[in-house]
This record gives sequence, structure tokens and C-alpha cells, in this order.
Amino acid sequence: MKAARYYDRKDIRIEDIPEPELKPGTVAIDVAWCGICGTDLHEYLEGPIFIPPKGSPHPISGEEAPVTIGHEFSGTITALGDGVADLEVGQNVVVEPYIIHDDVDTGPGAAYQLSKDMNFIGLGGRGGGLAQKIVVQRRWVHPIGDIPLDQAALIEPLSVGHHAFVRSGAKAGDVAIVGGAGPIGLLTSAVLKASGLTVFISELSEARKQMARDTGVADEVFDPREGDVAEQVRARTGGKGADVGFECSSVPAVLDMLMATVRPGGVIVNVSIWGHKPPVDMPSLVLKEIDLRGTIGYANDHPSTIALVQSGKLDLAPFITAKIPLDDLVTEGYDQLINNNEHHVKILVDPNA
Amino acid sequence: MKAARYYDRKDIRIEDIPEPELKPGTVAIDVAWCGICGTDLHEYLEGPIFIPPKGSPHPISGEEAPVTIGHEFSGTITALGDGVADLEVGQNVVVEPYIIHDDVDTGPGAAYQLSKDMNFIGLGGRGGGLAQKIVVQRRWVHPIGDIPLDQAALIEPLSVGHHAFVRSGAKAGDVAIVGGAGPIGLLTSAVLKASGLTVFISELSEARKQMARDTGVADEVFDPREGDVAEQVRARTGGKGADVGFECSSVPAVLDMLMATVRPGGVIVNVSIWGHKPPVDMPSLVLKEIDLRGTIGYANDHPSTIALVQSGKLDLAPFITAKIPLDDLVTEGYDQLINNNEHHVKILVDPNA
Repeated sequence: MKAARYYDRKDIRIEDIPEPELKPGTVAIDVAWCGICGTDLHEYLEGPIFIPPKGSPHPISGEEAPVTIGHEFSGTITALGDGVADLEVGQNVVVEPYIIHDDVDTGPGAAYQLSKDMNFIGLGGRGGGLAQKIVVQRRWVHPIGDIPLDQAALIEPLSVGHHAFVRSGAKAGDVAIVGGAGPIGLLTSAVLKASGLTVFISELSEARKQMARDTGVADEVFDPREGDVAEQVRARTGGKGADVGFECSSVPAVLDMLMATVRPGGVIVNVSIWGHKPPVDMPSLVLKEIDLRGTIGYANDHPSTIALVQSGKLDLAPFITAKIPLDDLVTEGYDQLINNNEHHVKILVDPNA
Repeated sequence: MKAARYYDRKDIRIEDIPEPELKPGTVAIDVAWCGICGTDLHEYLEGPIFIPPKGSPHPISGEEAPVTIGHEFSGTITALGDGVADLEVGQNVVVEPYIIHDDVDTGPGAAYQLSKDMNFIGLGGRGGGLAQKIVVQRRWVHPIGDIPLDQAALIEPLSVGHHAFVRSGAKAGDVAIVGGAGPIGLLTSAVLKASGLTVFISELSEARKQMARDTGVADEVFDPREGDVAEQVRARTGGKGADVGFECSSVPAVLDMLMATVRPGGVIVNVSIWGHKPPVDMPSLVLKEIDLRGTIGYANDHPSTIALVQSGKLDLAPFITAKIPLDDLVTEGYDQLINNNEHHVKILVDPNA
């Protein structure tokens, strides 16, 4: 079968590799669509980061580069391993792409995303969505009902936004300020809006501001160059400020803006990934008793996220900005997202085209 | 009566001023002891900060420099204003030294410490504990039963530690790492220890390490120069790490240590005051889903704090390292704390001596 394999930084190859083997407790899936994630770009430009380099096999998967990549994917079940009785061949599904130790609790409330040696399918081994077929453990397979397969490829990053929402403790009626309208900022906003919050977005890029407006995920979009965001949010909340903030940009000035914009006693969830230790406005954190919370991945968020999409409150179609065949992954996928990223949210790859 | 009055930076005068007037709803108190706080030192060296400068009266108190100072004090009730029926002349009390707007909710769960224009008695006006007498609103007076009056002067900073404990969400049986064994680090540790936590302290100063050991507030005291604190805490917690951390030093390296030492999903409460925006280890905050929480002052913490002292689980006597008369406030108080601070926890001032 065809698969995209990561050998090293800037060395990704489309190759023909053996099909994965169905084992007891696993599910065989024909991949329909796979999105390209910011993490994939980091691996391509600066990696290997999550990907285990050659000579350093991952402690759980036992695999090392080259590995098949892609962790945002949807597909159709083609076969069920022994012992899998609660799914059916022909069902459309998405995969929650975790690699964790077998003895880690994944029940309700368990923080398995924080477990030792955690990695992701499509980065740390065990196949990936940028291939025609994959076999995964039953635990990670989530049926999607009649959600179109292309939109379903966005459920993984949407679950990141859902987990950030859960981490915030926010509820319907609350006011949120989202810093940054890149893919994660937009998808987090989509979850917040569909969950009944008032959503304000702060963003500099014209294209991204337009996307935030066009997709309807924000009640209002502010440009911090055109006026103080904190003042504008206070003016719209009776002087109170936002209940929750979401950092989706990895920009220190955005973190400052969130500290100024959330109300005393408010919560800021950091959804972005930082490569360094940025300055943080601790004086405001202290005097306003702000909670600054980290969030990573998801933990039992997929079912709620899928239900949110099925409810019709959230339309994923506008976030798909291109569809490309696997052979064009680097030229029409990675290179586009690197050089023209303001104009893209999610590029989907068809591994069968 | 005699009172210490703040005129400006490095200009504090012991003066004879008129006694405060008893009004309906207020309580007259003869001050017994008043502690010197780090905030007082900041006002003295770098202020005015909380103190309203001359020409800029505080929006609630209407007062400006010079103001009477001192906000950590105990005393005895000498008279009750009209309408105060639930206290008695002769009762020993402490004061929760808030200045807030009259319409702010101060009931259970109310975050009145975060209310607009909040300031403190003894900084923002309304008299202070570095005077022979004070009159305060009934709301802020807390009876202390048979707690000795000198120890009771420490209930205010102890309430800061109690509020930090409440903010952490920690409970008996949890493991805490406290960064810094200055006055607030020690008093926070005392609350944690009395509340049933295992308490580890990290501190560089020999004198402060000794104080942490002598006062019995820590199960173990680590010197970060003698070995990695995170490793040592993990070695004592079955590899898990601390459940909660408390930043009590305003040192970026201590904040880094706490990020490394708390477990995934752990909480760090920042109890210290920062004068700048320090670098914060956001990569760890994200990957470990740490909650970094600000805390300021107290909010309905005094009754629980007083009960903790009355229970006998917490002995405040060892934290009193000197007692001085009001006339020596600057020479034997401020100057000692500025030049010889490692050897002091709390210096108490007797306004009647």
C-alpha cells in the first residue's frame, strides 16, 4: 500500500509498504482522508520531535524512523480482529491516535494523555493516516455515524479544542476571548460557540480575521492594532471582562492581552505549543487571581466532540481549504502551509488518489 | 495617640495624632502588637505602591499620604459603635484589613479581595496597626479567643498562606513543595502541615533552612545546590512528584523548579509578588497540564485560620524573632529586615512601648 514515511527532517517519502496485519483486539481501517497538523510541520522543519529518531526506538511502539505519518484521519472499517464485537465492517470511524502503555487507565476522568511515554499514532509509530490502510486497537476507534468522511478528518484537532474547553471549566453563557485564529484557534472557537459561549477573537492577519468571520465561530473579531482588546471586551461585558481566555498563537503579546482581558478570578487555557519560556505577566496573574492552565491532546473528548458535530451546531466544512492526493503531500501540502499558511486552515490528503 | 505615618519613600514619622472616632457599626480597638510585612518594606524602599500618594486620594477611603501604616495587628476591644451587638468590650481580636466598596458582597465564596479599588487598612487609609488605637468596621473584626496577642499579630500573614492553600485545592494526604522559606513560605508551610499535607521546602539560605527545620513546618528541607529538587521529591513519592507547589520567592529559577517538581496534572500557586514579567516554563505547563494560579490576600479565610491556631496544630511563637517599641520602627524594624532579613521571620512592634 502507499504510505508517507518520515525519514528525517525535510525527508518525507511516499513509498509502497506492506499492509498492516489484523490482530486480536484491533480494527482494520481503509483511510479516507487525513489532515496535516502543525505538529507535522514542526517535525518536517525542525524534527524529529515526537518522532523517535533512527537508533532511538519509542519505548512503547518499539519503532523508530522511518515511520508512517498522519494522525488526523477518518476512514471505514474493513475488518475486525478477534474479540471486537461492538463495531461493524463498513462503519465510518475516526481514530483517537494515542500510543500509551497498556496498563494505563483510560476510563472516565483518567488523565491518560499525561501518562509516561505517551506518543501519537502517526508520529511515534503504529502506522498513520497518510497511508491507505491502518490497523489500530479497538480502544481508539470512534464511530462517526453520518458525519461526512472529509469533515470527520477534523475531529482530531477539534477534540484538542474540546479538551481545552473542558480544561477551562467554562459553561454556556460565559464569555471567551481567543487569541489567534489559526487552525487550533478557529476550531477551539467553534467548540466554544457550539457550546453556548459568547466568543471574541483577537487576530492580526487579514486572511485569518476574514476566515474567523466567514466561519461564524466568533461573535466579534478584534484587531489589536485597531484598539485595546481588553477595553473592547469590557465595553461589551458591562465592564467585567472575559470569563475565559484561550492562547492559540504562541505569541507573548497575546498572552499579555489575555491576562488583561479576562476578569478577576478568570481562567486562561494555553492551547498553543511553546518552544521557549516566554515572559508571563505574573503581576496580573497574582492581583487578578487568574488560573493559567496547560492543555495537551484530549482525554475521552472524542465522543462529546463527535456528538457536537452530529448535533449540527458546528459545521466543519468551511475549515477544509484544500484537498490533495498523497503524492503531492510535500509540494501542495507542507509547502503551502509553510509559505501560504494564512490562507489555509486544514488541507486534507486522500491517500488513495 | 502615637502612630507611625508614611509620608513618602524612606520618610516614615512617629507622630502624635488625634484618636480615631467611634461611629455606628464600628469597633474601637487598643492595638497590642503589629507585625512588619514585606509590603511595608516595599512601600518604604520603592513606594508609594498601595499607599495613595499626596494629591491622589484613594477612591474609597478618600485619604492620601501621610497615612498611618501597619496591617498585621492584634488588640483588645475598648468600645462598640451603635448597632454592634455580637462582640464585647475586652475581647481580644484581629482585623482583616480590607478597604473595599460598601456594596461588595463579602459572603461565603465571594471574591471580595478582587473587587474594584480594593486596598488595605494600614496602607490605603482608615488608620493602621502601627498606632495605639484604631476604629474599624464590624465586618473586619475577628475574635481570637485565648490565642496570645503577640502570636495573633501573625494571623494576617497566616491567612495569606491559608488562602493560598485554599486556592491550591489541596487536601490532607497530598504532597506539597514550597519554594522559598521567607516569612510567607514558612507560614504557608505551617498551614499546609497543620492541614495534613506532607511538606517539602526548597531554600538556599542557611539561616532560613535552619528556621524551616526548627519550626517543624517541613517534613524535609532541600537545598537546590545539593541535588535536583524534582528528583528528590520524586524519590520520596514513588516517582510521582508533588501534587501542589507554592511559589514564595519571586525567583524565576524557583518557578522552574516547581514546574519540574509537581506531577502531571498538578497545581502551582504563586504566593509571591513579582515586580516584572518573569520567564515561565510554558512547555512544561502545557505538556504536564499544570495549573498556575494566582493568589492575593484572603477571602473569608480568617475564621478557619484562627481555628487552625486554636486547634494547637500550628504554633506561631517560633516565627516571632524580635519585639520592638514603636519609636524604633525604622532602626530596629525596617533596617533589620532590609539588612539582616535571613535571620528574621516576623518582627512585632508594640505601639504602647
